Amino acid sequence: MSLHEECGVFGVYAPAGTAVASLVYYGLYALQHRGQEACGITVNDDGLFYSYKDLGLVGDVFAGDKLAKMPQGNMAVGHVRYSTTGGSDRKNCQPIEVNHQKGRMAIAHNGNLSNSYELKNKLELDGAIFHTTSDTETIAYIITRERLRSESIEKAVEKAMYIIEGAYSLCVMSPGKMIACRDPHGFRPLCYGRCEDGSYVIASESCALSAVGAVFVRDLLPGEIVVFSKDGITSITAHCKTKPKKTCIFEYIYFARPDSKIDGISVHEARRRAGHILAEYYPVEADVVIGVPDSGLDAALGYAEKSGTPYGIGLIKNKYIGRTFISPSATSRVDKVRIKLSAVESTVQGKRIVLIDDSIVRGTTSGRIVKLLREAGAKEIHMRVSAPPFLHPCYYGTDIDSEEHLIAFKLRTEEIKDLIGVDSLGYLPKEKLSELTGTNEFCSACFDGKYPTSVPLNMPKNKFEQKISKGSEA
Amino acid sequence: MSLHEECGVFGVYAPAGTAVASLVYYGLYALQHRGQEACGITVNDDGLFYSYKDLGLVGDVFAGDKLAKMPQGNMAVGHVRYSTTGGSDRKNCQPIEVNHQKGRMAIAHNGNLSNSYELKNKLELDGAIFHTTSDTETIAYIITRERLRSESIEKAVEKAMYIIEGAYSLCVMSPGKMIACRDPHGFRPLCYGRCEDGSYVIASESCALSAVGAVFVRDLLPGEIVVFSKDGITSITAHCKTKPKKTCIFEYIYFARPDSKIDGISVHEARRRAGHILAEYYPVEADVVIGVPDSGLDAALGYAEKSGTPYGIGLIKNKYIGRTFISPSATSRVDKVRIKLSAVESTVQGKRIVLIDDSIVRGTTSGRIVKLLREAGAKEIHMRVSAPPFLHPCYYGTDIDSEEHLIAFKLRTEEIKDLIGVDSLGYLPKEKLSELTGTNEFCSACFDGKYPTSVPLNMPKNKFEQKISKGSEA
Amino acid sequence: MSLHEECGVFGVYAPAGTAVASLVYYGLYALQHRGQEACGITVNDDGLFYSYKDLGLVGDVFAGDKLAKMPQGNMAVGHVRYSTTGGSDRKNCQPIEVNHQKGRMAIAHNGNLSNSYELKNKLELDGAIFHTTSDTETIAYIITRERLRSESIEKAVEKAMYIIEGAYSLCVMSPGKMIACRDPHGFRPLCYGRCEDGSYVIASESCALSAVGAVFVRDLLPGEIVVFSKDGITSITAHCKTKPKKTCIFEYIYFARPDSKIDGISVHEARRRAGHILAEYYPVEADVVIGVPDSGLDAALGYAEKSGTPYGIGLIKNKYIGRTFISPSATSRVDKVRIKLSAVESTVQGKRIVLIDDSIVRGTTSGRIVKLLREAGAKEIHMRVSAPPFLHPCYYGTDIDSEEHLIAFKLRTEEIKDLIGVDSLGYLPKEKLSELTGTNEFCSACFDGKYPTSVPLNMPKNKFEQKISKGSEA
Amino acid sequence: MSLHEECGVFGVYAPAGTAVASLVYYGLYALQHRGQEACGITVNDDGLFYSYKDLGLVGDVFAGDKLAKMPQGNMAVGHVRYSTTGGSDRKNCQPIEVNHQKGRMAIAHNGNLSNSYELKNKLELDGAIFHTTSDTETIAYIITRERLRSESIEKAVEKAMYIIEGAYSLCVMSPGKMIACRDPHGFRPLCYGRCEDGSYVIASESCALSAVGAVFVRDLLPGEIVVFSKDGITSITAHCKTKPKKTCIFEYIYFARPDSKIDGISVHEARRRAGHILAEYYPVEADVVIGVPDSGLDAALGYAEKSGTPYGIGLIKNKYIGRTFISPSATSRVDKVRIKLSAVESTVQGKRIVLIDDSIVRGTTSGRIVKLLREAGAKEIHMRVSAPPFLHPCYYGTDIDSEEHLIAFKLRTEEIKDLIGVDSLGYLPKEKLSELTGTNEFCSACFDGKYPTSVPLNMPKNKFEQKISKGSEA
Repeated sequence: MSLHEECGVFGVYAPAGTAVASLVYYGLYALQHRGQEACGITVNDDGLFYSYKDLGLVGDVFAGDKLAKMPQGNMAVGHVRYSTTGGSDRKNCQPIEVNHQKGRMAIAHNGNLSNSYELKNKLELDGAIFHTTSDTETIAYIITRERLRSESIEKAVEKAMYIIEGAYSLCVMSPGKMIACRDPHGFRPLCYGRCEDGSYVIASESCALSAVGAVFVRDLLPGEIVVFSKDGITSITAHCKTKPKKTCIFEYIYFARPDSKIDGISVHEARRRAGHILAEYYPVEADVVIGVPDSGLDAALGYAEKSGTPYGIGLIKNKYIGRTFISPSATSRVDKVRIKLSAVESTVQGKRIVLIDDSIVRGTTSGRIVKLLREAGAKEIHMRVSAPPFLHPCYYGTDIDSEEHLIAFKLRTEEIKDLIGVDSLGYLPKEKLSELTGTNEFCSACFDGKYPTSVPLNMPKNKFEQKISKGSEA
Repeated sequence: MSLHEECGVFGVYAPAGTAVASLVYYGLYALQHRGQEACGITVNDDGLFYSYKDLGLVGDVFAGDKLAKMPQGNMAVGHVRYSTTGGSDRKNCQPIEVNHQKGRMAIAHNGNLSNSYELKNKLELDGAIFHTTSDTETIAYIITRERLRSESIEKAVEKAMYIIEGAYSLCVMSPGKMIACRDPHGFRPLCYGRCEDGSYVIASESCALSAVGAVFVRDLLPGEIVVFSKDGITSITAHCKTKPKKTCIFEYIYFARPDSKIDGISVHEARRRAGHILAEYYPVEADVVIGVPDSGLDAALGYAEKSGTPYGIGLIKNKYIGRTFISPSATSRVDKVRIKLSAVESTVQGKRIVLIDDSIVRGTTSGRIVKLLREAGAKEIHMRVSAPPFLHPCYYGTDIDSEEHLIAFKLRTEEIKDLIGVDSLGYLPKEKLSELTGTNEFCSACFDGKYPTSVPLNMPKNKFEQKISKGSEA
Repeated sequence: MSLHEECGVFGVYAPAGTAVASLVYYGLYALQHRGQEACGITVNDDGLFYSYKDLGLVGDVFAGDKLAKMPQGNMAVGHVRYSTTGGSDRKNCQPIEVNHQKGRMAIAHNGNLSNSYELKNKLELDGAIFHTTSDTETIAYIITRERLRSESIEKAVEKAMYIIEGAYSLCVMSPGKMIACRDPHGFRPLCYGRCEDGSYVIASESCALSAVGAVFVRDLLPGEIVVFSKDGITSITAHCKTKPKKTCIFEYIYFARPDSKIDGISVHEARRRAGHILAEYYPVEADVVIGVPDSGLDAALGYAEKSGTPYGIGLIKNKYIGRTFISPSATSRVDKVRIKLSAVESTVQGKRIVLIDDSIVRGTTSGRIVKLLREAGAKEIHMRVSAPPFLHPCYYGTDIDSEEHLIAFKLRTEEIKDLIGVDSLGYLPKEKLSELTGTNEFCSACFDGKYPTSVPLNMPKNKFEQKISKGSEA
Repeated sequence: MSLHEECGVFGVYAPAGTAVASLVYYGLYALQHRGQEACGITVNDDGLFYSYKDLGLVGDVFAGDKLAKMPQGNMAVGHVRYSTTGGSDRKNCQPIEVNHQKGRMAIAHNGNLSNSYELKNKLELDGAIFHTTSDTETIAYIITRERLRSESIEKAVEKAMYIIEGAYSLCVMSPGKMIACRDPHGFRPLCYGRCEDGSYVIASESCALSAVGAVFVRDLLPGEIVVFSKDGITSITAHCKTKPKKTCIFEYIYFARPDSKIDGISVHEARRRAGHILAEYYPVEADVVIGVPDSGLDAALGYAEKSGTPYGIGLIKNKYIGRTFISPSATSRVDKVRIKLSAVESTVQGKRIVLIDDSIVRGTTSGRIVKLLREAGAKEIHMRVSAPPFLHPCYYGTDIDSEEHLIAFKLRTEEIKDLIGVDSLGYLPKEKLSELTGTNEFCSACFDGKYPTSVPLNMPKNKFEQKISKGSEA
């Protein structure tokens, strides 16, 4: 309920004179779940770049005549952002545009570098100044510096991939080329598709391809660079043979849209399978299985299928809840969960319920949902969680937070059960994660602490925010 | 998919100094599905009224410090509106506030009068001038004129009920009283509940009571006036004994939220029963039953239950689609349905599908959904509609339009089947409507043309918009 | 410095298909000094009316594409408003549009009725309800009721003029006619002009005619109705022969723009003459004459001319001060006068100064200006005020307030002199007012209490705001 | 009328816990004439920086609660900007904030570097990337790079001054110090003052000191660095002994506010003297001398004094014209000059007029003003310009444009006279410029082409906008 993916990217390579900004707009709309704090689009009109970006949802930022005012062109790149750092700030909006004499480019980035601190440190001592606090500017610097001694922009990107480390799916747009690139571990998804008119679109998730009427072509391989230009499509993969694939398992469990496929595996199916596993591991006599909308519904269906207990619609989500919602602090008897979710009494009353959610982060939200169901007359509530307990922070682009905020790190399952007030509680067993996707090629560091890259030591409490020591320097 | 309820109302009667505006805000949030074009709140602070209203969603209109700036008080009334008339206009926002020397009042209204044309005509010839085009101003006039010769505001409301005709659920707030009132046929729902601190809340639907933590007390009876004041709660019913109850059946089928109960009947259950009936009437060999989100899901579950065909999640709705969405005219290959809905390929591919929606209005949207599913690999699509075909316009507060726009009026079912491209098509039989709620006390005029009141003759083509003849007068 | 005119009106009668909204926009821009709180435009496109109005300056309200979105047409009417009543409210914006079956009309109004309380009272007891708190709605009611028994709109306006009393300059637009009308006393100015293409424009002040390139034709006579229609221009004057002309003298002294002429008399000249009179009455040995910008400059020039003392530029006004200025409460050492005005040290230092302003209302602002000049080194400051002292409230459309707020009512000139810290102080003698315009046909009730009409008795303390007694009624 | 200064800066050094943002706000309000496109404030709260900046006027950008939300602190720096480059862009707003490990700083800058192209080129080849197109980022880079090898921020600023060349007045704020610095030629003004509570304020013009109640202390010397810190105030001047002072003469003639003093010389007096010179050089029999508001008024007064011809108020400027003004393209008979200025007929009619303006750039505006005066009945119009003809572009921070746009470069005075339709025309003689300020220490390159620094060769047509060649690179 309260975890966030950091970003989504979308790129278009089309014939000149296409309404590329509109295509990106619709693509970003479909990727909005990956970032709701900011968004932006950069259009490439025959080598000239035009950007518009701001804090807000795609529909709000590009409201009025903003979209119509963007020029047509042959390429565009867009970005949606959820910022995990301290204050969300307009200057951190992407794409980042670099107007360097050796070549302009616009970069949109999904992921988090694990060595950004070191890289930034080195760059600053070398005279660089940073305007933003995002990793993307670091990447922009590295690519630009490599560009000074490379014969092409894609060569510069390739060299940069030896330097930057961690999770990144990039769209890099130069005056003449659109470059998609996925980090050697493949932490974050990235795929591309083809439209009827021969345009190509790149997207963080396949759901965004469908949204613009494109047909899925394929996922990028981990470490792959795909270059779209007037010379056609080129793939560069040589440089990164040796790293193991480590796609974020939580993309399947929670972040991605259920209608997306990532590396050939349906997100909806992975969640249904999580439901199957939960049914096998934690069977219970019950009258109805209900999911917490939206991301608990697929696993609830899976649980119902496997257990034979009927699937029911027990919780309704208010579909108008958006970013503008005013916190209900003004009046004590209204809580936010009550505004967002409500119980369907006729489904719940007098029933023994299996309740499926995708995670328990701090426990507060789960406790309130349980209270809602009790008030609506639920007799028993058996909670099943379609992910293992979070025990470790994520350094690859999600806001799974430091250990001390994760309830599972502090309490045993039995204690959590009591805290949230359910009759039984079962987490998806860590060792069954591979059954979700039928492969072991994923990162589950947030569950098991096995980080595929070196991770920052001595990170401050809140790993994402570089606290600035106050006032001593001059 | 494209039908609209016209309004929702919400009222609070509380101890002085309560954050009544906040309570109304949360209540309106829960009623947002009943009207997305405009909203407003009027607070009563010891007899002084403060209003804020504007075009937009509740969360947008009251964004920033708008809510915090409203005073505390002991009463407040709120409104969400969907306007069916020509241009949506700020001046039509409600509540309507009347500052008359014989007594101030604020009125929020859900419904449509069937004799408003006659009433407005008479009032104008009597020297009245109208600022808005809504029926609510007509009601305000009638109540005010009755007020001039009545000993109390509730008496004026009662007398007005003999004059106005059609559908109306009202919240009328005077300096000292909160009055809820439902028309003698009970076309539109209205209920009230009680909060722990002794406050009372009135709402169009019970889901809004839960949203503010209130416990449902009861629905208003058709023709009932309930007065909340410092003298307690009074009910007035004597005046309207003779009219038959005619609650709008489409509230159950489509308009209301599934977690609401109207007149004791769960909306979710009514829809599930529609699914049961469809399964009995139109059985088909199929692999999966999917509903069009959100309002087709309950009936889909019912169909699956009755038929034994598994329930599946086959269509995902983009949860960020809001009012600010820019129409995709800019680029021909993107259609709005594609932005709003997408198919879950793993559910659909190679499958024989039963597709449940709540209505077919013009057929365009259904046709596009079918196309989406075909592209995702659906082998067969059997559409089942959880309502009978629309054949007659509604005069009671929904925008079920004039006959010539209703596809079912122009085409036979077989033709509609071909038009939208499904393998079979079945509508809920008119004669089974009573099974949805287990009673015959409903209005189904949009299906059978049996209007409970006299209806306007010679209405212009578009019944809702009083076309103004151009330029001849001076 | 702190007195406000209440309104300005502007109307256009043009060939069909003219960008009438733009013409009104520029006209209102030129009348902005008459009202800065709200504005609006209603366009008449062959009998259909389109309005846009909101709180704010003309440039802000019609920013973006608001103006471009208004249709072309053959007539339009506009309004700028300064509201003296309690809260400024969007619903009080003008023009007021009335869509009555006997004829639509839009009304823009400058002035205040002196019998509005009685009229409103009578109308309410007759069943009328009021949405606004402005006199304009009362006028709209009266005209509409007369319209029901008149053969034409102009006849209805004429009859209404027998009923309403006080100050009013009106633009009334019907589907086919544009009607300008000035009250029988001619309190507020109103004139019209002609454009090259044969269009006619009506404006509160002649400066707005020039702004749209129109040539001044003439001022309306007091009590005159001028009708612009396809039948040409008609004047109706018969009905009001007996009332004496009483144009507001403060229009000349302060409200109007110096480049306007009212009833043939230049505002700039009237102010210069005030300076001449002050020089004759209150001569003083001095080095320089300076005016408080903007409205004190003309009289300062006159004083300098007559006295022989050189005219100087001694105070500069910050030209960016607008409505959005944040009050400097945050920090005690900054006062608003200091932000708005500053002294030109080289003009002031070591000098004996004659300082000309157009009025002293509460004395605070004058005191601060004097302090500014002292800090800049002024040796002596002799203040001359180009109006007599305010002693009586105005009931005709300005916010010259109740007696107890007017400093001249409470203190003698000698005391005021000490309070604001000047070396000498002289007000324009009441008996010389007629020399400003060379005629006695003006209202100077704010100076001498001689009201041309009956005035409300027992007005509440703040005459403009009908205080609503709290909470007793129900 | 259409020339623009590029920027204004304002800084505060105060005790901790001061409402420094408010002080800067008022300071920027007073400097608004130096830049109307964008503004910003950075507050330093004990070493932590908070910025807010956006496109728009100071009053608009900091409207609402923007100012109140900024923290209190002990230092703040602010900026108003007029951007001469192609599109005005939010990213070019200042102050620029640099968060470098060797020390944070915020920079506000007024002026233009003459070697920025070379510097930027070198920096880019060294791996720097630029986010903005302003010189300020170049300065930030240079200071930061020097900072890496300097013991203090002021030392880094001093070293940077050997590298950057051209016009710059800077406020540089570090966590512990506020540094004001003026380029070695002193092109742009910069001064500081002292408040009663011991705070110091730095401002582009002295008028901004008065606005916040500060007492002027002194102007910075050309090439001087003044450091405000807990150790008091330090001045550094050693480094720049050899450069001649070259203050921009156009600051006196046009840019600065008349109530400012620059380097001890009153701007108002300088303009009056320009009037005196014009009266001596170009005497004419006339009835009245009028100035084009606002900046022609001082010289008009001077002309009147010297010539004995009476000073008159002949043109009124609409004081509500702001940035939101919609261009009157919609209707051909309205021109912008007519909206902005209007003639006072009673001053002008039948008169022989001396018309004083501060410059003629393209001639269009002057032509329209002349037309206005002719329409108002002017018999003769003798134009006197209080500056010599522009013949050369400015490279030091104003938008005096490339030669081909300057009318005086293309036409002889006689031809210009005919073009704008006056009876005679006289420009201030170049050789008399020194009499305005009584010194020769000024830059008048725009008049005589004598640039104090080397200037860019082969500048593109529009010298300010680095045209980007389209599309060839990849």
